[in-house]
Amino acid sequence: MAERSEDSEEVKLLGMWASPFSRRIEIALTLKGVPYEFSEQDITNKSDLLLRLNPVYKMIPVLVHNGKPISESLVILEYIDDTWRNNPILPQDPSERAMARFWAKLIDQQICVAAMKVAGTIGEERDAAVEETRNLLMFLEKELVGKDFFGGQSLGLVDIVATLVAFWLIRTEDLLGVKVVPVEKFPEIHRWVKNLSGNDVIKKCIPPEDEHLEYIRARMDKLNIKSA
Amino acid sequence: MAERSEDSEEVKLLGMWASPFSRRIEIALTLKGVPYEFSEQDITNKSDLLLRLNPVYKMIPVLVHNGKPISESLVILEYIDDTWRNNPILPQDPSERAMARFWAKLIDQQICVAAMKVAGTIGEERDAAVEETRNLLMFLEKELVGKDFFGGQSLGLVDIVATLVAFWLIRTEDLLGVKVVPVEKFPEIHRWVKNLSGNDVIKKCIPPEDEHLEYIRARMDKLNIKSA
Repeated sequence: MAERSEDSEEVKLLGMWASPFSRRIEIALTLKGVPYEFSEQDITNKSDLLLRLNPVYKMIPVLVHNGKPISESLVILEYIDDTWRNNPILPQDPSERAMARFWAKLIDQQICVAAMKVAGTIGEERDAAVEETRNLLMFLEKELVGKDFFGGQSLGLVDIVATLVAFWLIRTEDLLGVKVVPVEKFPEIHRWVKNLSGNDVIKKCIPPEDEHLEYIRARMDKLNIKSA
Repeated sequence: MAERSEDSEEVKLLGMWASPFSRRIEIALTLKGVPYEFSEQDITNKSDLLLRLNPVYKMIPVLVHNGKPISESLVILEYIDDTWRNNPILPQDPSERAMARFWAKLIDQQICVAAMKVAGTIGEERDAAVEETRNLLMFLEKELVGKDFFGGQSLGLVDIVATLVAFWLIRTEDLLGVKVVPVEKFPEIHRWVKNLSGNDVIKKCIPPEDEHLEYIRARMDKLNIKSA
């Protein structure tokens, strides 16, 4: 259990079951042992509550802690680590903290964007997007050499953020019929995905595969993206 | 002087005099009283040193501390605050820290992008970009009510990051002949710019106005952006 957890404490997560950004908050709270109430949001028809709590972005996830709303998943993860100090998510050493933040930012601002391009393009444009995504993933591949997790022996910030690669990008590539992360090129990433898949917190907090694949396939159909 | 500063310590900043991202690192180091060596980089002809120290983005600023390179200005600012603990840049309270990170991220990922669109467009497209920039700035305007700085009585993370608005966006709008941040709509932001302009650290760390305007005008000419 988290050190600062109290019965009177309100911890509420406005999220969406299939969102990697929402799931990463669930992973962090679960790692810390912080009990929370989950409020599933319809992202196609946003609730007044969501619009009121996140007037800037109007997006999930939003963490509400004792009445105070916090938005943006990377900001929320840092907040969780600043608030509940047990089972640290960020390293303690300043330069290791900086590297964790650097990779987390790269995943959200570069890898996620490049991977979305893979889904949204065809032909040569898609080939270029695959190449771009792989070039970025190669930095992560090298980071994993000799480590069980990005965090070393246990899950850390980069592992939590990179579940997007492990369980969203890789599940989607199967449906797209495009191997963005082939095991021959990315043996370390695939070894890491296995480590993640065997972790109890991760098992509890990622979307069940069948429902998730069905959801992704329906999204692809809606966006006119051809599945394999 | 910074608490951990030692004569044997290497603190080197690879930067560029007219870059808001580089200048924010100078502000933070100066606030902390950390002596540093500045290495001016030619961003049109990148040095081997820069490419080696920041192989992912190949961009300034890079802070090198005792041989370890750190990239990405927001990551560097957090590193500086984690390493030299005097004159904190981030608030101590977790929810205030979260809000500072939230606004810093908004400035870099939304306001900066919208403001760049103002420069890069004309006619109706420019009007839309001005509107978008103003809508985002209005959140900052409200944050400043009753405060000297975003950080309260003294400079903090958001002030450092928002120098981009105070001294880059506002200086550029004069050259463009488009008032993106009119004083009637944004009295708090203009009051804050005055406070910033009177601060000794800021005065020391922002580009001298005449040279800066000349540089911006030359950049606009090069990019075929009509100046007023």
